[in-house]
Amino acid sequence: MKIAILGYGTVGSGVYDIITNGKTAELKNIEVKSVFARSRDKMYLATDDYNEIIEDNEISVVVECLGGINPAYEFIKKALENKKHVVTANKAVAAKYLNEFLTLAEENNVKFIFEASVGGGIPWLVNLERTRRVDVIKRVYGIFNGTSNYILDNMYRNNAEFASTLKTAQELGYAEADPSADIDGGDVVNKIILSNALAFDIHIDNNFPTYSMRNIVKNDIDYLKKYDYAVKYIGETNVEDNKYETSVMLSIFGKDSQEAAVPLNNNIITLDGSFIGELKFFGQGAGKLPTGNAIVQDIVDIYLDVPRKDMVIKNELSYSDELTKKKYLIRTEEKLNSELIKKEEQYEGSFYIETKEITLKQLKSLVAEVETKDEKYLVAKFH
Amino acid sequence: MKIAILGYGTVGSGVYDIITNGKTAELKNIEVKSVFARSRDKMYLATDDYNEIIEDNEISVVVECLGGINPAYEFIKKALENKKHVVTANKAVAAKYLNEFLTLAEENNVKFIFEASVGGGIPWLVNLERTRRVDVIKRVYGIFNGTSNYILDNMYRNNAEFASTLKTAQELGYAEADPSADIDGGDVVNKIILSNALAFDIHIDNNFPTYSMRNIVKNDIDYLKKYDYAVKYIGETNVEDNKYETSVMLSIFGKDSQEAAVPLNNNIITLDGSFIGELKFFGQGAGKLPTGNAIVQDIVDIYLDVPRKDMVIKNELSYSDELTKKKYLIRTEEKLNSELIKKEEQYEGSFYIETKEITLKQLKSLVAEVETKDEKYLVAKFH
Repeated sequence: MKIAILGYGTVGSGVYDIITNGKTAELKNIEVKSVFARSRDKMYLATDDYNEIIEDNEISVVVECLGGINPAYEFIKKALENKKHVVTANKAVAAKYLNEFLTLAEENNVKFIFEASVGGGIPWLVNLERTRRVDVIKRVYGIFNGTSNYILDNMYRNNAEFASTLKTAQELGYAEADPSADIDGGDVVNKIILSNALAFDIHIDNNFPTYSMRNIVKNDIDYLKKYDYAVKYIGETNVEDNKYETSVMLSIFGKDSQEAAVPLNNNIITLDGSFIGELKFFGQGAGKLPTGNAIVQDIVDIYLDVPRKDMVIKNELSYSDELTKKKYLIRTEEKLNSELIKKEEQYEGSFYIETKEITLKQLKSLVAEVETKDEKYLVAKFH
Repeated sequence: MKIAILGYGTVGSGVYDIITNGKTAELKNIEVKSVFARSRDKMYLATDDYNEIIEDNEISVVVECLGGINPAYEFIKKALENKKHVVTANKAVAAKYLNEFLTLAEENNVKFIFEASVGGGIPWLVNLERTRRVDVIKRVYGIFNGTSNYILDNMYRNNAEFASTLKTAQELGYAEADPSADIDGGDVVNKIILSNALAFDIHIDNNFPTYSMRNIVKNDIDYLKKYDYAVKYIGETNVEDNKYETSVMLSIFGKDSQEAAVPLNNNIITLDGSFIGELKFFGQGAGKLPTGNAIVQDIVDIYLDVPRKDMVIKNELSYSDELTKKKYLIRTEEKLNSELIKKEEQYEGSFYIETKEITLKQLKSLVAEVETKDEKYLVAKFH
């Protein structure tokens, strides 16, 4: 089976290396015929003419490793329309155009799969899909982003400040020069949208409650430690009675939990099934070889023609921000009066406010009030 | 597709309930036609005549949930010889007769699969198999036994003694009246043998180093806590240079590790791949619905004719007890003199001896010496 790789950066070169150096019988039957890249200096198979790939009837799989929306969107569309399977690690384009891509793939009798786009090297989506052959999933949640975990883990274990930790993360290549996708939620938003599609047959847009973690400071970590808590940046969806509720925000876990124990830039993602209970998947959520490995697994699935559960976006669940009641922690510099508040503690000059068990809707109204007084507030959910 | 379930205890009735109550399209196409059980009082499909099942050409899958070696061994053999697929959760019979069953299955063009036999509800073997389509696995290890984890977790979190914790575990149904399979290693031995087969194409017998955990006391936990350690009961195999090394024993982890955080009777199992790095799988290692769920997943694989990686026992690795060098902890009441010892500490009347980095072979010689002086010694590996 012959494939083309679009892009020869970290992920694209990882895919190429694994296929070329891999030792398994499956990999011996897969050949990289073409690579869409600007220059032949780094890669002798490079072409900068996408039509060459599209018109090559020998190429049956297009592996999109460009990232971003354009030209990834057009390239994926064109590949599917030309009856080529598409494999991608591009969460942004997959989350935005999932419905369109799946419909196009079905019409052209090819596959659109994207294991590496969520959880990097962790076999998350495939296990979500497999679980649903038998079980009904009630909830998914987890640490979907390695950069934010690196930051929170370092602040927790080394008593470090946010700013210096972010700088170290940037120096180590764990965080981008502009870290907003990782710390303001955009990356996790895309990953929970894709997880929702596999777990609940819904394709939602990104206007659910999403709270940044960029205001966290050492003082917050110290306050939580006092009560044996750690805080992680979590995407989560709960489903009940044909309703779903999705959020992305800091979440507070007991210090002895699996989540608290996730070190460095690793991920851990959980599904909760009616029969199976909680299953957790831990591993490298990014990186050349882990992500490359997940992409190559998708390619092998196509090669072996493994029956995948048909992904059908039914959108039969309706959104609710009143589905669950949880306690939340709000840290602000200004005193707050609300009947939603259970208790308040002053710690090193800040107010740490614990809410009663309230809905996301109630939280939104409370945060709206806080925002008018203190832009640097922090909000976290008690998991 | 019609199936027969052998045994209607915890696991067998779990399989029946999931197939009967399951809501997925896959499950609607699977029907339990017969149940091998003593009495029709509890199960209207019961028959105590196995030949009735074997001679029924409509039944294409036999699900063995009897446990133990006899008559499970004869029943599985007979089913395979009669060209029926076999699914089992029976680690004892699978670990002992794996080679024979796989050969018989191949000769008769049917499948012998056993996901539920290791890790209960955790999709461990299937992910091990999937990983190997692309990657090379260097190591597997983990908490394979929920009973031992319940005991160690309770001793750690609640400062409890071994004897009282075991009693509670027995009352809660987590431990058997005779707990030896769980605490002396037999259960983990079978599970690591089966994991080795999937990960390394070897089918080994059970004469590798296996050390019981039954001598552990509160004092040992306290000593380890002093150094921020927790201890877990671990099965582990390392592979290097065409050699393998397997052991089952207590292993010492940092208190902030994923392993230390595993609560109650849960399992966590890790594979370490060349490309993928460490992947960890966490969940319920036993129980009616989790185990039943894993069995039903195997049945669905047969129904969908999912291509599984051919399990071929090549036995190309040779055993070595000198493959890795690790530090070990030995607790004994008697002083010990050996050049393999790095340091010794007296704590609450016992000697806690830390070895240099030594091989399993050296450990064996050291333990042989300890045994002559103190039958109640404890040995653990620093992970």
